[in-house]
Amino acid sequence: MAKKKWILAGWMILLVALMGMTVVGCGKQPSSTLGPINTGLAPDEVDIQKFAVLFPHQYDSFMKNAEMSTVGTKYGGNLEKDSHLEKYPYLKTLFAGYAFSLEYNEDRGHVYTMHDLATIKRVTSLPNGKKQVGSCMTCKSAEVPGMIQKMGLDYYSTPVEEHLKNMNHGMSCSNCHDPQTMKLRVVQPAFIDAMKRRGEDVTKATQQQLRTYVCAQCHVEYYFNPTRQGEVTFPWDKGFTPDQMEQYYNEIAATQNKFTQDWKHPLSGAPMLKAQHPEFETYQGSIHQINGVSCADCHMPYTKEGNQKISSHQWTSPLKQMQQSCTVCHREDVDTLRNYVISKQDLTFEMLNKAGSANEVAAKSIEKAVQAGATDADLTEARKLHRSAQWHWDIVAAENSMGFHNTPLTMNTLSKAIDLANQATMAAAKAGKFNDIPAPTPYSDYINERLSTQGWPKDKGVKMPPSDMSWK
Amino acid sequence: MAKKKWILAGWMILLVALMGMTVVGCGKQPSSTLGPINTGLAPDEVDIQKFAVLFPHQYDSFMKNAEMSTVGTKYGGNLEKDSHLEKYPYLKTLFAGYAFSLEYNEDRGHVYTMHDLATIKRVTSLPNGKKQVGSCMTCKSAEVPGMIQKMGLDYYSTPVEEHLKNMNHGMSCSNCHDPQTMKLRVVQPAFIDAMKRRGEDVTKATQQQLRTYVCAQCHVEYYFNPTRQGEVTFPWDKGFTPDQMEQYYNEIAATQNKFTQDWKHPLSGAPMLKAQHPEFETYQGSIHQINGVSCADCHMPYTKEGNQKISSHQWTSPLKQMQQSCTVCHREDVDTLRNYVISKQDLTFEMLNKAGSANEVAAKSIEKAVQAGATDADLTEARKLHRSAQWHWDIVAAENSMGFHNTPLTMNTLSKAIDLANQATMAAAKAGKFNDIPAPTPYSDYINERLSTQGWPKDKGVKMPPSDMSWK
Repeated sequence: MAKKKWILAGWMILLVALMGMTVVGCGKQPSSTLGPINTGLAPDEVDIQKFAVLFPHQYDSFMKNAEMSTVGTKYGGNLEKDSHLEKYPYLKTLFAGYAFSLEYNEDRGHVYTMHDLATIKRVTSLPNGKKQVGSCMTCKSAEVPGMIQKMGLDYYSTPVEEHLKNMNHGMSCSNCHDPQTMKLRVVQPAFIDAMKRRGEDVTKATQQQLRTYVCAQCHVEYYFNPTRQGEVTFPWDKGFTPDQMEQYYNEIAATQNKFTQDWKHPLSGAPMLKAQHPEFETYQGSIHQINGVSCADCHMPYTKEGNQKISSHQWTSPLKQMQQSCTVCHREDVDTLRNYVISKQDLTFEMLNKAGSANEVAAKSIEKAVQAGATDADLTEARKLHRSAQWHWDIVAAENSMGFHNTPLTMNTLSKAIDLANQATMAAAKAGKFNDIPAPTPYSDYINERLSTQGWPKDKGVKMPPSDMSWK
Repeated sequence: MAKKKWILAGWMILLVALMGMTVVGCGKQPSSTLGPINTGLAPDEVDIQKFAVLFPHQYDSFMKNAEMSTVGTKYGGNLEKDSHLEKYPYLKTLFAGYAFSLEYNEDRGHVYTMHDLATIKRVTSLPNGKKQVGSCMTCKSAEVPGMIQKMGLDYYSTPVEEHLKNMNHGMSCSNCHDPQTMKLRVVQPAFIDAMKRRGEDVTKATQQQLRTYVCAQCHVEYYFNPTRQGEVTFPWDKGFTPDQMEQYYNEIAATQNKFTQDWKHPLSGAPMLKAQHPEFETYQGSIHQINGVSCADCHMPYTKEGNQKISSHQWTSPLKQMQQSCTVCHREDVDTLRNYVISKQDLTFEMLNKAGSANEVAAKSIEKAVQAGATDADLTEARKLHRSAQWHWDIVAAENSMGFHNTPLTMNTLSKAIDLANQATMAAAKAGKFNDIPAPTPYSDYINERLSTQGWPKDKGVKMPPSDMSWK
């Protein structure tokens, strides 16, 4: 009898140990519990349907990226046709003369990348017969790394419309996984090169690093190197902060790569920089980063699909799935956490709009100085300030977290944007010998409504059915 | 044999239970483990020496408040004669015409309150035979609550030098403890009244609330109500944020209490508000506050003195005692935590000095406009902006944490200080019809050195021997 009990206890211990192997905690990856995988797929497979047969749960969660909803969030959340230009009226001045003034919408799910690229006016309706080139679509399809390998730098300079004729796939598993082993990997040359220039060989990255690096292939600031047919290049040689990237542009890009501006602002005449979704850079030095939390820890929480525990492949705001994302590490209740996050976002949003309006006033003031007869020499300082001011605003405006990813850095950056824009305005007034500073465009209802609502507007979430994803 | 084992086990359980009673964790107070106390002291005892005999370890740790050192901190840390006016050159302009321009030093330990009050030029050397009144010393001695009880409102209007003749004690146990039971309590009428106006009866506060409230009796913003002989009053009726307190001053204090300004700025002519150490207000809504952490949890960590575990009564930066303060809750190593804290303080410090300089420029610009012939009517807007700008700067400058207590709120406030000051300057330039904006005083070596040093300057900590505490 006693022996039977011991045998039973032995089985129990073994069972618990086996269960333990599948239990994943903060920052652990379940794939290690699956053992080696051999998919039987070709090493350059990009067709998501081929993967879907093998990994149906992950595929299903990926297809949830078609859903659009702001339930649980106050800022952002993948809403279709939510025009930035209408929400933030000062943008029309800030992006005057640049493609972003044609159409600029709220970001939405990864399944729409090719549809949105193929239909947005920034690609379809450039003035003077101009054509957007391959550089713009580098992150939009799993086919791109193979195309770069085949075409070399010609990939970047070939027009988008030429590329589209020969393409069939959007984002796919192969953007982040080796198709044969499903191991995480990075494929974006710009990321691999930039990290190499920083002394890091990403082929030696750990699993936990890769859980950030796969996202960092695209969720970053970049520019098109004119000395290399517009090759996508990341400005990280001096560091990741907005000030360090600006210094890179002014010192390294301008001299070594002859890149001096994204466009010349038609009102201020300043050589402008357009910032792009710097999620990876912003997160550097944040409380989550110094604690070793990866992008995937919050944006790809473990979820149960049928009898299987998988990493969710629906990339969206963790505020929509806090029980899965946040409470793995944080012991507070979901409402307390959400209210705290949104209180920080509220303070960021207030500063962001002040910075946007201050930049609008700066651009209009320099224009006014020109009209009043100020020369280029008179306006050197004002233009330098406007370029820097709008950079500091845009590097936050283009970032997808309304300050959450690194609130102290974001707020410090916005305070510089505000101050530099005001300084640009004062320099313009001096150059143009006027005192009547132009007024900014009044805030939209969207801005005013958020400024006057404290906390999370529980009843204001919007849910929309999946939209058309086709592009061919 | 089996029986003996059970008896032994019983003793073990009892022993562990007893040990458990003395084990204190995050946010727990050891006094509850001591059982009821009857000190035998008089209910109005204020003499610290009487308490010292009964609580020698607590007394010894209180006397460590005489130590002055910045080892472990980068900003602040109880350093004697560390003149704010020298460290921040723009202060001479910001506080022109106000007592703070006479002498304004780094805060130091609680044992120096009466010495510093009795010797500082703000009290000893007011121009035109003016005398500082009791209102100024409300928080400096344990005798004050009894004096207010005895004298009524006359306490506040009686000159400090009159009061000093009859006083013998500085800070003491009775500021926070009932002398007979040693239970935590609050004694400051201004705190009790302000909380009552907010609908809170502080006699019903929990132990954990009191571990914050005893500090909040003094570490707060206040003003002297002119309709009540200068009674110390806290501006919390509309809320705790800088904007809400400013609104209180502009709407409630100005109309109900005829309090419109602390002083009139001699350069700008604006009616100014002087902010005071708003630690309690700043901490509201912070990550530590929403998690139920009290002031004492970080500033009075449990330490071992001989065979006894006590709450440290040496109040200073937790950066000096992180092992005791932070790692009770945070699992990171001390260096990682310190570097993160200081990285946020660095970003705050940068903004604080920009805001200070911007306010200096605003004051000088309004002065320039007056000299250029602008009338009071012309300058209404500029002065309103200057008052608000300097309030937003000072409510951070006067707060003792360089942004740590609530980084998002602090940075949001500083961005407003910068923007409002710039707006004041532009309004002044318009009113005075000039474009040549005055330059700010260059930063001091103190500021420049900190701006150029990333992280914690390990080798720069300063330690000084205890200094003279006498005042009679």
